[in-house]
Amino acid sequence: MTGTHTWAIPEGYVPDGSTGPEPEMESHETICVLNTTDEDAAIEITVYFTDREPVGPYEKTVPAERTRHFRFNEFEEPEPIPRGEPFASVIESDIPVVCQHTRLDSRQAENALLTTIAHPLE
Amino acid sequence: MTGTHTWAIPEGYVPDGSTGPEPEMESHETICVLNTTDEDAAIEITVYFTDREPVGPYEKTVPAERTRHFRFNEFEEPEPIPRGEPFASVIESDIPVVCQHTRLDSRQAENALLTTIAHPLE
Amino acid sequence: MTGTHTWAIPEGYVPDGSTGPEPEMESHETICVLNTTDEDAAIEITVYFTDREPVGPYEKTVPAERTRHFRFNEFEEPEPIPRGEPFASVIESDIPVVCQHTRLDSRQAENALLTTIAHPLE
Amino acid sequence: MTGTHTWAIPEGYVPDGSTGPEPEMESHETICVLNTTDEDAAIEITVYFTDREPVGPYEKTVPAERTRHFRFNEFEEPEPIPRGEPFASVIESDIPVVCQHTRLDSRQAENALLTTIAHPLE
Repeated sequence: MTGTHTWAIPEGYVPDGSTGPEPEMESHETICVLNTTDEDAAIEITVYFTDREPVGPYEKTVPAERTRHFRFNEFEEPEPIPRGEPFASVIESDIPVVCQHTRLDSRQAENALLTTIAHPLE
Repeated sequence: MTGTHTWAIPEGYVPDGSTGPEPEMESHETICVLNTTDEDAAIEITVYFTDREPVGPYEKTVPAERTRHFRFNEFEEPEPIPRGEPFASVIESDIPVVCQHTRLDSRQAENALLTTIAHPLE
Repeated sequence: MTGTHTWAIPEGYVPDGSTGPEPEMESHETICVLNTTDEDAAIEITVYFTDREPVGPYEKTVPAERTRHFRFNEFEEPEPIPRGEPFASVIESDIPVVCQHTRLDSRQAENALLTTIAHPLE
Repeated sequence: MTGTHTWAIPEGYVPDGSTGPEPEMESHETICVLNTTDEDAAIEITVYFTDREPVGPYEKTVPAERTRHFRFNEFEEPEPIPRGEPFASVIESDIPVVCQHTRLDSRQAENALLTTIAHPLE
């Protein structure tokens, strides 16, 4: 087994502001995707908000036998993710992958971290 | 599949005190709920304590294709959640959703974060 | 469904030292247990180490419709948990419960937090 | 049940730099493995990168009824893990175990922590 096609992350928040050198200490909200198969994975990410329509799909690729750590703060198309606003996301892949959610918050002088495996849906 | 009807979070604690600008740096204990369906979700939250009867339900709505991040420190009805006291919670929804638990603790000058997907019960 | 009988937590570490007022800012490693049933739960915790025999059971009770957040640093019988040494734990309950693992590390001036739902075994 | 044979951790990152006394305050990325059975577990870890071939297996042993907390920053054979570069990992065991992922980041003066149970694959 190599994972699951669809994953959900109810928590999402890009901290507005950073302390320390970029890019490693820039505040970021990340989806880590692992593709252990021998085929490239086509990923579509949909972002949900509190009071407006979902936005997406954000289209990404995770090549065969690779990992990619995507930062929401670098998403451009179809539109950037606003800073300082709660959101959630669903990740859909054409082949089974594994997803994990991580945040580094460097708004204050000392950074804070959180992580969890995303929730597998199907 | 769009999630699960019932979720449990054994950890709960609203830090008593905050440092930094509100509301973003106020200490908070949060349930993030994602509803990817085309129907509004009616949510009932029950809060469990160490030495007294459970309190609830706290009634919330997560509209179709929306996320809501509920802060325990803002719960009012049937009664506020005490600061600095351990609790746990169960989230029940009439349609399947996904739940995640997050805390920002800003009692000290630099904040700390934790998160986990809640435990799906049925 | 109200949970699972057996849970595993491979990570365990009681930080050796604390900064700030006790008990809320004392470094602690915690198992949060939620019992939503109408019967008291008898809990047995076994602690595993790197290079010596497991220790236990540590016997605890979580009353009906209550949560208890047990700190490893307060375990006494059959023996205290050493500070600054890696361990792991298995939690067994006679009725199904839900378990979550949390650490507050206050060895430095600003605290750090981690949490995860434990791994359900059976 | 004593766990699962294969686990995935999509997030991986060894912070480049540390503050405070070693080894307890050295920045580290850890896999905690718990073996509750009465047989030694032979573990093989494969590490995946963003833009190059996977590296491994890193071979480890977790004796019967023991836990081992392996730090990626101490991996030597077949090659060290680079600092400051995203990676992911898959852990395969010949007998069922439980795996958890933890990071301590001490690049700044005050440390930060994250953890999650790894994702069970089969």
